[in-house]
Amino acid sequence: MTSTGTLILLRHGESDWNKKNLFTGWVDVPLTDEGRAQAQRGGELLVERDLLPDIAFTSLLRRAIATCQISLDAADRHWIPVERSWRLNERHYGELQGKDKAQTLAEFGEEQFMLWRRSYDTPPPELAEDSEFSQWNDTRYAVLPPEIRPRTECLKDVVERMLPYWYDAIVPQLQAGKNVLVAAHGNSLRALVKHLDGMSEQDVVSLNIPTGIPLVYELDDDLRPLKTGGEYLDPEAAAEAITAVANQGKK
Amino acid sequence: MTSTGTLILLRHGESDWNKKNLFTGWVDVPLTDEGRAQAQRGGELLVERDLLPDIAFTSLLRRAIATCQISLDAADRHWIPVERSWRLNERHYGELQGKDKAQTLAEFGEEQFMLWRRSYDTPPPELAEDSEFSQWNDTRYAVLPPEIRPRTECLKDVVERMLPYWYDAIVPQLQAGKNVLVAAHGNSLRALVKHLDGMSEQDVVSLNIPTGIPLVYELDDDLRPLKTGGEYLDPEAAAEAITAVANQGKK
Repeated sequence: MTSTGTLILLRHGESDWNKKNLFTGWVDVPLTDEGRAQAQRGGELLVERDLLPDIAFTSLLRRAIATCQISLDAADRHWIPVERSWRLNERHYGELQGKDKAQTLAEFGEEQFMLWRRSYDTPPPELAEDSEFSQWNDTRYAVLPPEIRPRTECLKDVVERMLPYWYDAIVPQLQAGKNVLVAAHGNSLRALVKHLDGMSEQDVVSLNIPTGIPLVYELDDDLRPLKTGGEYLDPEAAAEAITAVANQGKK
Repeated sequence: MTSTGTLILLRHGESDWNKKNLFTGWVDVPLTDEGRAQAQRGGELLVERDLLPDIAFTSLLRRAIATCQISLDAADRHWIPVERSWRLNERHYGELQGKDKAQTLAEFGEEQFMLWRRSYDTPPPELAEDSEFSQWNDTRYAVLPPEIRPRTECLKDVVERMLPYWYDAIVPQLQAGKNVLVAAHGNSLRALVKHLDGMSEQDVVSLNIPTGIPLVYELDDDLRPLKTGGEYLDPEAAAEAITAVANQGKK
């Protein structure tokens, strides 16, 4: 038995740029209707399992914010506190932001493509501050001194900037016995799962987290998962989706 | 000149029960499509006037929460902090909750009807705890000891339970120079406007606040309005809507 609250991870559903097969990163694109339906289904799964969040955390990007709100509304938990932080943002994709994934694969070859997409510590080239896909002057990041405002990130960078938020904002809520929803992005959630499951830098490379399916971690008093890898609320759909994510960029 | 932030009040747009002409109160009904469009327009008006909120406050009811989120999203401010409190909820309408306004008018006569709707200190009869329209056992209000969990409210009661939140949560943000959005309800906003404008109990009776049109108050260092009554961002639409609200229940 544990008095620690339950952790529920939810990756946002399909966005405009997922659909268009573009690298998104910190570009703030909306969900598609399909993405909104996925978020709705995510909330319904929480109700089916009676796993109701007491507090939610999300990023500063509207695809995660909307996923959070839609899923909470579907679970009749739209009224709980929601906190937002850039530390839960998607990985900053540097100069790849706005680029077509298939074109990038064709242009740079599979080795370089997979290195940028999946290596632990190789970031893409930095995005120019004046790029149309830069968020350098976005007011929501104006509170960040330039030395921590990213121009590109590898997964290692995401782990480093995400973990302080995990320890300072999320862990205290779990320790207080709250059920916590984290509605975020493929890579900020991969970073968190790597930490929770104690995955190696090699193993996290092949970790894919499907969209819209709540991933539930029961944790002991030291915040270690009772079951490595947690549990998807819809395991069959999760398995199918994981395969689909792994094939992204290959169409 | 004032260093105090700007206060923006926004009453939620049409809900399912506005459309059906039912007393709503604390019953948690969703916005209609028209209500969502009104919230969108509210956000667009903020952009047109370059009045961008830094922080938002709303109630625990989804019609206000959705209005807040939709208007912020339309203004590209979906990422700002949003705090929710029962103290911004609509007036609890007691036994009238769920009742048809026109039927209530016909049943009880105009004098009693207007007394319940508009008198300052006469609440409707208390709602039974086991009514289908009661929120007595709703988990979101479980933190409230019974003596402050309302079973009915008059506007005086709303002023009394709203003001502590104004002073403790909202005023410090305005004093810090933040632009503050309060997305709430007809009566919680009437309570706030009464306080801001120093209206008498008699005068507030005839105050109507239209839905979906931002009402902007510039405040001095003592939080007194520079202009009594504030300023609607779309004054013509506001004037039309005020007339429509005043005629509610008379169809």
